[in-house]
Amino acid sequence: MSENVKKSPLTLQDIKDAAARIKPYVTRTPLLREADMDEMLGCKVYLKPEMLQVTGAFKARGAFNKVLMLSEEDRKKGIIFSSSGNHAAACAYVGKMFGINAYAVMPRDTPKGKIENCERRGGTCILWDRDYQSRVKKVADEIKEHGYTLVHGFDDYSVMAGQGTIGLEILEDMPEINTVIVPIGGGGLMSGIATAIKESNPKVRVIGVQVAASCGYYLSRLNGRPTRMTSQPSLADGIGCSYPTDNPYPIIDKYVDEIVIVSEKHIAEAVKIIGKYAHLVAEPTSAVVVAALLEGKIKTEPEENVACVLTSGNYDIDLIGKFYKDEEVEPED
Amino acid sequence: MSENVKKSPLTLQDIKDAAARIKPYVTRTPLLREADMDEMLGCKVYLKPEMLQVTGAFKARGAFNKVLMLSEEDRKKGIIFSSSGNHAAACAYVGKMFGINAYAVMPRDTPKGKIENCERRGGTCILWDRDYQSRVKKVADEIKEHGYTLVHGFDDYSVMAGQGTIGLEILEDMPEINTVIVPIGGGGLMSGIATAIKESNPKVRVIGVQVAASCGYYLSRLNGRPTRMTSQPSLADGIGCSYPTDNPYPIIDKYVDEIVIVSEKHIAEAVKIIGKYAHLVAEPTSAVVVAALLEGKIKTEPEENVACVLTSGNYDIDLIGKFYKDEEVEPED
Repeated sequence: MSENVKKSPLTLQDIKDAAARIKPYVTRTPLLREADMDEMLGCKVYLKPEMLQVTGAFKARGAFNKVLMLSEEDRKKGIIFSSSGNHAAACAYVGKMFGINAYAVMPRDTPKGKIENCERRGGTCILWDRDYQSRVKKVADEIKEHGYTLVHGFDDYSVMAGQGTIGLEILEDMPEINTVIVPIGGGGLMSGIATAIKESNPKVRVIGVQVAASCGYYLSRLNGRPTRMTSQPSLADGIGCSYPTDNPYPIIDKYVDEIVIVSEKHIAEAVKIIGKYAHLVAEPTSAVVVAALLEGKIKTEPEENVACVLTSGNYDIDLIGKFYKDEEVEPED
Repeated sequence: MSENVKKSPLTLQDIKDAAARIKPYVTRTPLLREADMDEMLGCKVYLKPEMLQVTGAFKARGAFNKVLMLSEEDRKKGIIFSSSGNHAAACAYVGKMFGINAYAVMPRDTPKGKIENCERRGGTCILWDRDYQSRVKKVADEIKEHGYTLVHGFDDYSVMAGQGTIGLEILEDMPEINTVIVPIGGGGLMSGIATAIKESNPKVRVIGVQVAASCGYYLSRLNGRPTRMTSQPSLADGIGCSYPTDNPYPIIDKYVDEIVIVSEKHIAEAVKIIGKYAHLVAEPTSAVVVAALLEGKIKTEPEENVACVLTSGNYDIDLIGKFYKDEEVEPED
């Protein structure tokens, strides 16, 4: 953890404010004690099941916080975001609730199910190139032309503050928590949770999990500075990260004690274990935190209280069935 | 609903007392709003996910309430129950927590997984005849010899009061609820919930669901008095009911507005839908309430707030995988 970091622009108070702001609109998920998983995972296991969140993912927290902070005028103009997954669904949902036009810029080859998932919630899909930079430019052009507000999936302090409310809830439900494990993709979720936890109680360990196929944060930490890699497909398709972005990077650098990577095999096993013992449908991206414990990547004591943040549950249910039956599932390109 | 029923021995106050008593030991499950299921089910859908309860089923509520009401002397002697499923696991768990010996009388041909599930939680399994009457006699003999306290799975007011706390929580989270749908097996869960709901707000509709293969309560209501049938296997193996017993029958007769039955095909579909949209692993017994709406067995309005009580999630995860993949699953004999 480097010491030369300036005061973070994201504060505990921002997250407390976010919690009060989004409270009427989001589900207060419980912190579940899963004693049946203790022996297998080597600690006292708690799960924070954000697949039970509205829209099936934690993303609704950040989207609500961002939109609730917009002026009436900005709301009238609409919001835009570059996502085809859980963030898009969350933004569309929030937009619909407040009568705000919501535009999702997605690659043209986005699976039909994901497009429908956004449109069903009231979003308008703008199909564009797969190339990331081309989509970034498209979003910028749309903003320039129409005055939309960008709701970035992670590189935005208001969004981070919304996601950070998960950290507050964990501390509220279990003040004696020792360790919190969080998946890192773009880093918005981790930035929020790590700030909430470390600025409340610096003694709590905060550990991030990435997949080897796309582990920009892991690599950057090894290398001591932001470092780019060429991502490959992983079952955990929601936490791909080729490169850490400017805003979350210093927060994660400052507050995250350790970043570990997990193997694909253990992700598949973790999806099944979470279904079997916790009765929750976790998408593979969600399951990496349990996979990290299963694989022994995180050192824990049997009496240690460990909270695993399960991010989401939106995944082809037939493929979930394959995981439960120990059938092979290939990561999508 | 007959009018010649005496004041029920189970009261709203009993259930409120139970709630205070069991609070430190059970999970306060949320009431989840599942807007994605509204159109499919024809109402505003709320789910009460008791598969997230400790031991994976609502049964822990009743078991805790019963045991917490025992004298120190009775606790020392131990508890006994005739169950191989969720009730046995719950009683074993409660026993272990308080250092009370817990004895489960089960048929000799009980699947190994269920025996282990009870033993792993600290219970002692007494394997006996499959014949129900023979097991009832065995329990009585054990009680006579050792002074154990019987923790009946449903025919006990303290157990009913514990299960009824679910009804209080639904009203607390959603005072504008219009309809509550509950599976009926032995009737303990329904007796508790119906009392909690109807004695708090008689305007809320309470609807019970059974399966055609084993629907003693449905048949008894049709026939106007307790009526016996010969049960057959169903996917919903946790709500078999050949005959209504003395204590829950008059409560259900008085407070339950309607009892419907569902088909096996819709149970399988409901397991999948609950996984896909609510990200919860429901055992088939749990899924009957959603199946009843899916099958159109319960008349609802689009604006009606309907709570479905999902009882449990303990089921072979490979079979859950089959449901998710639309593969055939045969009910066990």
